[in-house]
Amino acid sequence: MSEKKVVVAVVGATGAVGREMLKILEERDFPFSQLVPLASARSAGNSIEYKGKKIVVKELKEDSFKGIDLALFSAGGSTSEKYAPHAVKAGCVVVDNSSAWRMDKRCPLVVPEVNPEALKNHQGIIANPNCSTIQMVVALKPLHDAAKIKRVIVSTYQAVSGTGQKAITELDTQVRQMFNLQAPDVKVYPYQIAFNCLPQIDVFMPNDYTKEEMKMVDETVKIMNDPNIKVTATAVRVPVFYGHSESLNIETEKKLTSKEARAILSKAPGIQVFDNPSEKMYPMAITAAGENEVFVGRIREDETIANGLNMWVVADNIRKGAALNAVQIAERLLKDNLLKVKDPNAFM
Amino acid sequence: MSEKKVVVAVVGATGAVGREMLKILEERDFPFSQLVPLASARSAGNSIEYKGKKIVVKELKEDSFKGIDLALFSAGGSTSEKYAPHAVKAGCVVVDNSSAWRMDKRCPLVVPEVNPEALKNHQGIIANPNCSTIQMVVALKPLHDAAKIKRVIVSTYQAVSGTGQKAITELDTQVRQMFNLQAPDVKVYPYQIAFNCLPQIDVFMPNDYTKEEMKMVDETVKIMNDPNIKVTATAVRVPVFYGHSESLNIETEKKLTSKEARAILSKAPGIQVFDNPSEKMYPMAITAAGENEVFVGRIREDETIANGLNMWVVADNIRKGAALNAVQIAERLLKDNLLKVKDPNAFM
Repeated sequence: MSEKKVVVAVVGATGAVGREMLKILEERDFPFSQLVPLASARSAGNSIEYKGKKIVVKELKEDSFKGIDLALFSAGGSTSEKYAPHAVKAGCVVVDNSSAWRMDKRCPLVVPEVNPEALKNHQGIIANPNCSTIQMVVALKPLHDAAKIKRVIVSTYQAVSGTGQKAITELDTQVRQMFNLQAPDVKVYPYQIAFNCLPQIDVFMPNDYTKEEMKMVDETVKIMNDPNIKVTATAVRVPVFYGHSESLNIETEKKLTSKEARAILSKAPGIQVFDNPSEKMYPMAITAAGENEVFVGRIREDETIANGLNMWVVADNIRKGAALNAVQIAERLLKDNLLKVKDPNAFM
Repeated sequence: MSEKKVVVAVVGATGAVGREMLKILEERDFPFSQLVPLASARSAGNSIEYKGKKIVVKELKEDSFKGIDLALFSAGGSTSEKYAPHAVKAGCVVVDNSSAWRMDKRCPLVVPEVNPEALKNHQGIIANPNCSTIQMVVALKPLHDAAKIKRVIVSTYQAVSGTGQKAITELDTQVRQMFNLQAPDVKVYPYQIAFNCLPQIDVFMPNDYTKEEMKMVDETVKIMNDPNIKVTATAVRVPVFYGHSESLNIETEKKLTSKEARAILSKAPGIQVFDNPSEKMYPMAITAAGENEVFVGRIREDETIANGLNMWVVADNIRKGAALNAVQIAERLLKDNLLKVKDPNAFM
């Protein structure tokens, strides 16, 4: 397939992640012949901008995918569940940002720096992992290769943009209301997020963990393709607009000094080590926002066990945590000549 | 000593913690005959209010403690280092909220719910632990008694009020500036705290941990009086005004189910278990602010090890984390008839 002939759809083009996808496609000069922005009936008719040109957003329908080679979905789980099979049926390869297909055995769950080989056997739908998982596995993979990770304890500090545009507006509105001595309106989250931390992301599961926490547990094992990596997570929403931070505690089979870990991570793809305590240099949400890399710092040996490390991992949750990772998957599909559907009925 | 005759000084009476101490003394109707607010020359001459009466703040000097039985210090480490020995010399018992005396072998480090017995052998200075340590050990102690804690991995979400009034103002000012499209002034913290998380609290130590993190490690061992409890910490400042949150991962010698842990904590002093996922009930900074208890929720078994628990611990860092704990120590000293200095020269 010649790259010039690729027709690309962005599903959910007007959402927070969809808009970032368009921006990243433009930045990276993604080689397509036509761009088709799709969205729900509510948003259809609006237009998006691409390289200074306005393109009208079309309504997403079951028959929207005729003639489309690649669809980047970021429109929520139920939309993906309903429309992705129709896209595949039309011969279109789907990279899906929702959680709908992530744990489906037919669908590879891919972070290009970690498991690009998983793309080879795709059947039409490739799943983009959860934002908090992506940045974590980018940082874990090189350490796993070097010293075999046995256990990870992660606590997250997640930005509101992970919930979408409406949550960005909610934090902004609540802060303005409070500074005008008004009670903050609480609509998107169960409680006020302004000047607060919410130890709940997504719904609770029967084991009292949240769905977000269990995503980090289950997706990590699938992406790393190693059932021996044990993860336990506490996922927390914080009053930050862009950039997820994570406090990671890692136990490895082989000893790694912090110096060795720093050296390994410095050479790893997609990572920028930002770690110099004497210069107060460490990753932060405000410096990771708008960047493509996963930033790692505060690397230090955990003195409570023989082979332990603590570190602080930050990335732009909308870019590497969602839109960029999806576009990187698409680039890899193109490069490896994998932009084709073997069985159009695989998901019907 | 009759309670009626106690003369109490509050050193640093105009700071964030000092003001809270006065509020708590009033709330609890602390039995003193005279209240002497002291502060630096800069703040002396201002007045504070106690039960509707104005009291002029006097300048702190080496000879300020004549005739004073009890001094609650909250004026920073260097002030405590300099003036607490003079207080003791004058026969005044000091409860100090700074870090100056915490690891001094002569000084008990006390959380009344955890180790009140340590007060017995005080030599004139009793140290109040670090805010992030206090709420953690209140939650750990009952579990330690029941199942022996071996290891704790803690990540904190700490409010700006822990840094003092100037940091409260800084967060407020930065948010207002950003909402008026101005660049935020950065003075108190190394970087912008508004809509950001800072993985640095206090200075860095030679081992690349921060002083705040090492306080949690060392103070926990001293308060719990058990060198076998191993703690590793990541301390993070978040854009919250009041209320520290902590994500705790605990490994115990004996197995505790989450149900057992919940039952144990429900009966423990100073704790309120706030843990019902189906009702979205968990502790948060905005609900802990202004309260006296340590709130514990999100209690769940860590499925990555045999005897592990995760939990979420929140308290008002200015109340239980500082002012209230100091007043509780003072109450205990009174109750146990320990408000006396054995050797006035113990710290000279």
